[in-house]
Amino acid sequence: MFQEYFPIWDTLRADQQARLLHALSFRTVRKGTVLHGGSADCTGLLLVKAGQLRAYILSDEGREITIYRLFDRDVCLFSASCILRSIQFDVTIEAEKDTALWVIPPDVYHDIMAESASVANYTNELMASRFSEVMWLMEQVMWKRLDQRVAAFLLEEAAIEGTGQLKLTHEAIANHLGTHREVITRMLRYFQSEGIVKLSRGMVTILDQTKLERLRA
Amino acid sequence: MFQEYFPIWDTLRADQQARLLHALSFRTVRKGTVLHGGSADCTGLLLVKAGQLRAYILSDEGREITIYRLFDRDVCLFSASCILRSIQFDVTIEAEKDTALWVIPPDVYHDIMAESASVANYTNELMASRFSEVMWLMEQVMWKRLDQRVAAFLLEEAAIEGTGQLKLTHEAIANHLGTHREVITRMLRYFQSEGIVKLSRGMVTILDQTKLERLRA
Repeated sequence: MFQEYFPIWDTLRADQQARLLHALSFRTVRKGTVLHGGSADCTGLLLVKAGQLRAYILSDEGREITIYRLFDRDVCLFSASCILRSIQFDVTIEAEKDTALWVIPPDVYHDIMAESASVANYTNELMASRFSEVMWLMEQVMWKRLDQRVAAFLLEEAAIEGTGQLKLTHEAIANHLGTHREVITRMLRYFQSEGIVKLSRGMVTILDQTKLERLRA
Repeated sequence: MFQEYFPIWDTLRADQQARLLHALSFRTVRKGTVLHGGSADCTGLLLVKAGQLRAYILSDEGREITIYRLFDRDVCLFSASCILRSIQFDVTIEAEKDTALWVIPPDVYHDIMAESASVANYTNELMASRFSEVMWLMEQVMWKRLDQRVAAFLLEEAAIEGTGQLKLTHEAIANHLGTHREVITRMLRYFQSEGIVKLSRGMVTILDQTKLERLRA
């Protein structure tokens, strides 16, 4: 039920609740589906019921870098960038796993936000939380070496998946971190030579988590 | 008058206006003053009457990178990060020029924002606008070469100052762009050898704006 997943449901007036429910749609998408992309697009707010989404930006040459990920109960605001005129950047949202989600049309959300301090403040918290993730990423990109960032990414993946056996191509890791596949391959081979990971086709297995954590720090 | 500088003044109720005016303080600070720094600090919202502020982040080793700048009529939200619990990063705010500004205490702003959809939505637009600047910076840092970033910075400075004679040390440029002084010195010397700038003590003079613009693109 949408009501249970939308954290400020109880703060809405009955007519606002009705408008939201009426406008809402539910979707299930396969891993790999691009849910939102480019600036022309204003898909709406995405509320994840179950699954995993990835938000990334693209360079002119097609390089990618992941700016945040969304899990169960997370809301994606930047797929509805038209609701705030000051948003002047484009993100692409892709399903990283099979995902079930609700889509809230941007115009309906915008109208309710304009009249409800509660919805506007909730939106503020959403944005502040993504902002914090992007600032974290900025610090990583600016001050950390790539080996530290690869270590942090492998540890994050292991935490998400609950296993040290990670189904990840070198290309996928490069696309998360905004670098080239060749650079990741070189780094992973170095990690392997240090006994930190074992590489096999489409798979990275963590052998020494402690070393990886020391590297990340 | 604060009323003329605060864009949503007219949307406030009389009691909210009175609370704001009562809590407000006016300050003038010298160039170089640090107005806000670190996480313990929650200075309040800063509304610039006249002057120029710089927001930057710091690495553990003391390197800096400018994340945005504030000019007349701009409002700094992240000096009041305590008003939003999802803000999990620290910025330092420094006066880049002598600056006159109002400080709105965070608790008063927070209370008015909680009851006013107008103030909450205004805050959303403020944050979205800073978010866009940070995303622009992220793209620069990720996809642009340093020569392009130095070119863009010199052109931005020339636009702000209204002159191609820029009083800027190499250290200051490095602190804006998040790199080391030596790296900037090398780059500027290369620019000089190409006839793009002329270097003298504490000064960079733009000789060929067209070349600089071509480099930035």
